Amino acid sequence: MTIAPDFNSTVDPAKLEKLAEVAVKVGLNLQKDQELVMTAPLAAMPLVRLITKHAYMAGASLVSTFYSDEETTLSRYRHAPDASFDRAAGWLYDGMAKAYASGAARLAIAGDNPMLLSGQDPAKVARANKANSIAYKPALEHISNFDINWNICSYPNPSWATLVFPGLPVDEAVRRLADAIFAASRVDRDDPVAAWAEHNAELHKRSTWLNGERFAALHFTGPGTDLTVGLADGHEWHGGASVAKNGVTCNPNIPTEEVFTTPHALKVEGHVSSTKPLSHQGTLIDEIQVRFEGGRVVEAKASKGEEVLLKVLDTDEGARRLGEVALVPHSSPISASGILFYNTLFDENASCHIALGQCYSKCFLDGASLTQDQIAAQGGNSSLIHIDWMIGSDKVDIDGVRIDGSRVPVMRRGEWA
Amino acid sequence: MTIAPDFNSTVDPAKLEKLAEVAVKVGLNLQKDQELVMTAPLAAMPLVRLITKHAYMAGASLVSTFYSDEETTLSRYRHAPDASFDRAAGWLYDGMAKAYASGAARLAIAGDNPMLLSGQDPAKVARANKANSIAYKPALEHISNFDINWNICSYPNPSWATLVFPGLPVDEAVRRLADAIFAASRVDRDDPVAAWAEHNAELHKRSTWLNGERFAALHFTGPGTDLTVGLADGHEWHGGASVAKNGVTCNPNIPTEEVFTTPHALKVEGHVSSTKPLSHQGTLIDEIQVRFEGGRVVEAKASKGEEVLLKVLDTDEGARRLGEVALVPHSSPISASGILFYNTLFDENASCHIALGQCYSKCFLDGASLTQDQIAAQGGNSSLIHIDWMIGSDKVDIDGVRIDGSRVPVMRRGEWA
Ligand SMILES: [Zn+2]
Ligand SMILES: [Zn+2]
Ligand SMILES: [Zn+2]
Ligand SMILES: [Zn+2]
Repeated sequence: MTIAPDFNSTVDPAKLEKLAEVAVKVGLNLQKDQELVMTAPLAAMPLVRLITKHAYMAGASLVSTFYSDEETTLSRYRHAPDASFDRAAGWLYDGMAKAYASGAARLAIAGDNPMLLSGQDPAKVARANKANSIAYKPALEHISNFDINWNICSYPNPSWATLVFPGLPVDEAVRRLADAIFAASRVDRDDPVAAWAEHNAELHKRSTWLNGERFAALHFTGPGTDLTVGLADGHEWHGGASVAKNGVTCNPNIPTEEVFTTPHALKVEGHVSSTKPLSHQGTLIDEIQVRFEGGRVVEAKASKGEEVLLKVLDTDEGARRLGEVALVPHSSPISASGILFYNTLFDENASCHIALGQCYSKCFLDGASLTQDQIAAQGGNSSLIHIDWMIGSDKVDIDGVRIDGSRVPVMRRGEWA
Repeated sequence: MTIAPDFNSTVDPAKLEKLAEVAVKVGLNLQKDQELVMTAPLAAMPLVRLITKHAYMAGASLVSTFYSDEETTLSRYRHAPDASFDRAAGWLYDGMAKAYASGAARLAIAGDNPMLLSGQDPAKVARANKANSIAYKPALEHISNFDINWNICSYPNPSWATLVFPGLPVDEAVRRLADAIFAASRVDRDDPVAAWAEHNAELHKRSTWLNGERFAALHFTGPGTDLTVGLADGHEWHGGASVAKNGVTCNPNIPTEEVFTTPHALKVEGHVSSTKPLSHQGTLIDEIQVRFEGGRVVEAKASKGEEVLLKVLDTDEGARRLGEVALVPHSSPISASGILFYNTLFDENASCHIALGQCYSKCFLDGASLTQDQIAAQGGNSSLIHIDWMIGSDKVDIDGVRIDGSRVPVMRRGEWA
């Protein structure tokens, strides 16, 4: 099946099968007679096969997988004519949109090398991304509107593993990354499906409490951080399993550790320091320090990648304001692993974080029925970007600030108070 | 990339690259800025990567590959609910139809295990095939109408190789099948592209002669065979490279040895015996004997796979009538190899053959401008199926029958007369 050596044989087959089961039963909660559309890197083929099996066992009517291939992607950058970089497979995305519109579920396996295109012409990468975003929009809207149950999980692609564990031989790096994915995805437990039920209940308990408190703001204090994040009017906290518009309760992300909501775009004040490096499109941005005034970033520096950070902030007006604030305890399994995954699906779940840019409409009470103007009026930010970065640690305290100015401990030394 | 041992390393990489080049330059004649939609078995990944490279080098704007996987196909038969077998990925085929309508070229890599489904419930196989045929029809019409340049070539999938060479170790079987594919595809020559130009000229010479003769019928005689195949009004013979409606000259099949045209759906009389086994979707159908009256199969039997044959004939009204008749000398390289490939792309090119089912509109004079009704009025058959089976050998003679009843020898003892 390949000319390259086989690193997948180092991945524990029993745990991989449990991951497949969790993806189907917990991630998707795939329904009887529901169709499934899957995308995956070629290297994730062993997981694709197991997910397909579990999907059919769960009653799937049909499972279709579209593979991406790092080598053919690079082949395009090496050999394709210039006009290629304004093209995208619109026919495929239109087909996917049609599948979702007729009720198919969606599963994406993440695991491509995050640095794959770092050696390519940035202008071509940007054009190809833009063409793809435009072509993918009709399909993506079914996901971002939460029309259907969907899930992202991940596979330890060798090219990703060697980035996460640069000092190790490839097979050892794959094994280490596989173990980290398995632990974060709770498939190292005896009964992973039960462990997820418990975990979802815990996340729901937190978001229910926060929704009951209806804080006006959160106040973060820690080394280099004294930040007040005003929350949007009518904000709603979410976390763990959610109900899609098709009525199916699913876990869109495996793993997930966060409860999150929408900040008020005009009401963020003070300064904040990042607590982990941020991997952004092939660049590492480290030791970020930012000051907000009236919700807007007015000062920003970083010990590494400052130039890229400043470019990101200049994307549009909304790029200097917050679209998300999320709470993750310092003891979360991903944080405890100490691994930097170079992958937001994992790294954002290792720490409390904020995101510059676009907010989620579902993080408003009755969000599905709000117009863009109403969302903006309630303090929801809008931008082309949504970039999460980590501001939590075992040295950070968080208070909830009520509308009358009284305070409630939310986290102490990185843990729920 | 796989848990199974790697048999692809036994395939000669230089010849595989020549096959990729022939597929792109001769098979597709891919045009600058043309999109390419490819389908392939997962095992053919090394060839997919080489074809993708050569496609981009030839100026392809975008290459998209959809992989099939024998294991997930079997998973469906083992685990999916009953209703699954009436489903097909219509969303994908509709997307492909859209790609072809907007000018994409089409390449299919053959190589799946022809016996893959032989152990499965034939009723489920038939239902799944029917659902797939119906869903695929809008896309297939662009191919059968020759709207675009397209090609089928093949890769020595280990599961196919062990079927063709059952006595050999897998790696040896793959090597033997690879060599047979390379020879039949003329990539064992010093200059394969030049060899194909010469071969195409030879096939054109034969079809030009047959088009000049304008026979009313062909009369096949041989052991168990006395068959008169009336030819459609305004039929046209084709062979080798042809011009698609988008103006591109391509070789739809690599390999190809046949010249072929459209029979008259109402004017086939007599009986005929197959001369080689037919591998049809996982079942071997052997020693077929069929009797035609008024163009329609009125009696059919087979020593093996008769049940499947009878089911095929019941697909629709057109499944009992002919859509193609093709002439291949017994001395063709594929025939000379003596190998039964269990794959129509090869086996049909080892022998004169007929096909039950859909005709090709391009096998009519000015076929591109004919409506479906006009094609039917001239004797062109229509059906969901198109199944070629072999009726030629070194014991079969063929006469051309002119409209005045006079006869011209076309083949004697399997060779051009
Ligand atoms: Zn988040
Ligand atoms: Zn986020
Ligand atoms: Zn043929
Ligand atoms: Zn045919």
